[in-house]
Amino acid sequence: MDDGGSDIQALIDAMARLPGLGPRSARRIVLALIGRRPGQMAQLSALMARVADHARPCARCGNISDTEICPICDDPRRQTGEICVVETVADLWALERGRAFRGRYHVLGGTLSALDDIGPEDLGIPRLLSRIAKEEVQEVILALNATVEGQTTAHYIADALPEGLRVTGLAQGVPIGGELDYLDDGTITAALRARRNF
Amino acid sequence: MDDGGSDIQALIDAMARLPGLGPRSARRIVLALIGRRPGQMAQLSALMARVADHARPCARCGNISDTEICPICDDPRRQTGEICVVETVADLWALERGRAFRGRYHVLGGTLSALDDIGPEDLGIPRLLSRIAKEEVQEVILALNATVEGQTTAHYIADALPEGLRVTGLAQGVPIGGELDYLDDGTITAALRARRNF
Ligand SMILES: [Zn+2]
Ligand SMILES: [Zn+2]
Repeated sequence: MDDGGSDIQALIDAMARLPGLGPRSARRIVLALIGRRPGQMAQLSALMARVADHARPCARCGNISDTEICPICDDPRRQTGEICVVETVADLWALERGRAFRGRYHVLGGTLSALDDIGPEDLGIPRLLSRIAKEEVQEVILALNATVEGQTTAHYIADALPEGLRVTGLAQGVPIGGELDYLDDGTITAALRARRNF
Repeated sequence: MDDGGSDIQALIDAMARLPGLGPRSARRIVLALIGRRPGQMAQLSALMARVADHARPCARCGNISDTEICPICDDPRRQTGEICVVETVADLWALERGRAFRGRYHVLGGTLSALDDIGPEDLGIPRLLSRIAKEEVQEVILALNATVEGQTTAHYIADALPEGLRVTGLAQGVPIGGELDYLDDGTITAALRARRNF
């Protein structure tokens, strides 16, 4: 394709490799950006550069943040006694949109997998256990995806947790095989409210 | 939504306003960018900044380019005797992907519209007429969308063209109401090859 400029083509190619995009949608986006009033594309680029510079996992929970400790961990109004364990930052965000949970999070970054050689250390499970001791946690909500991998990982964590802790899982509303990030906010809130002992 | 950083949220919001994207796809893209190896997001940002700085309409044909005269206009191997008139840069790119046309282009940037107060000057039609005189053009291909607006504009241009010129339009393969940018490359190539006198 001869679009009249190698940087333009390189930008289209880079955008086309983003999740959910392809060559056609990347072309439309780049043309729209070029067609907007001057400055808008430069603004988006500057914003992206700042995020690239500063975004990192929260040292405590694994949420993405541009501060060392994320605003959720840093918010004194959040309950310290509850930790909600999620697979991904996208899942954390999905739960936050539901506004039903007022505790804190622990982001695993994936699920256990013998095949991919992902063990408990890779998911920060030892770090979760030490947080539970330090932060006087009373309840751990295992909000993992309702997939085989998610539930296997949830069972592993439940077994590793100390005695005397309330351990719950999301219950009602999560469809079999469903992924949290694809649920509507109402369903995810209902599932959290109706959480059951694991 | 509390995502742990205002720049991150601002980037998601800005991405969500791009054509074809929404909040969910923007979140997935931003998370994917943050999750990639360091440097990739900064590279994308730098590429975007360069395009924002340099991309502009070609002074001759209206194609987007990072040079004053686009590579198509500047390519001595392209035939000077044929000009293909298109509505948008996206349409020009679609024709280029078909690789069937070896002449040059003229991008209108839209269609005539009394309602939106878009007249011949806004579409560069006087500039097209002076190019036809200067560049010794023998054939003008009116490759506008097969919509009412596209065909009205095509008829207006055909009437304004000097006598003795071959004036053709894309024929076979363009569905009624269809837009060029959505056609597959084979169809657009067939339509160009089977072009008829207008
Ligand atoms: Zn945190
Ligand atoms: Zn040009």
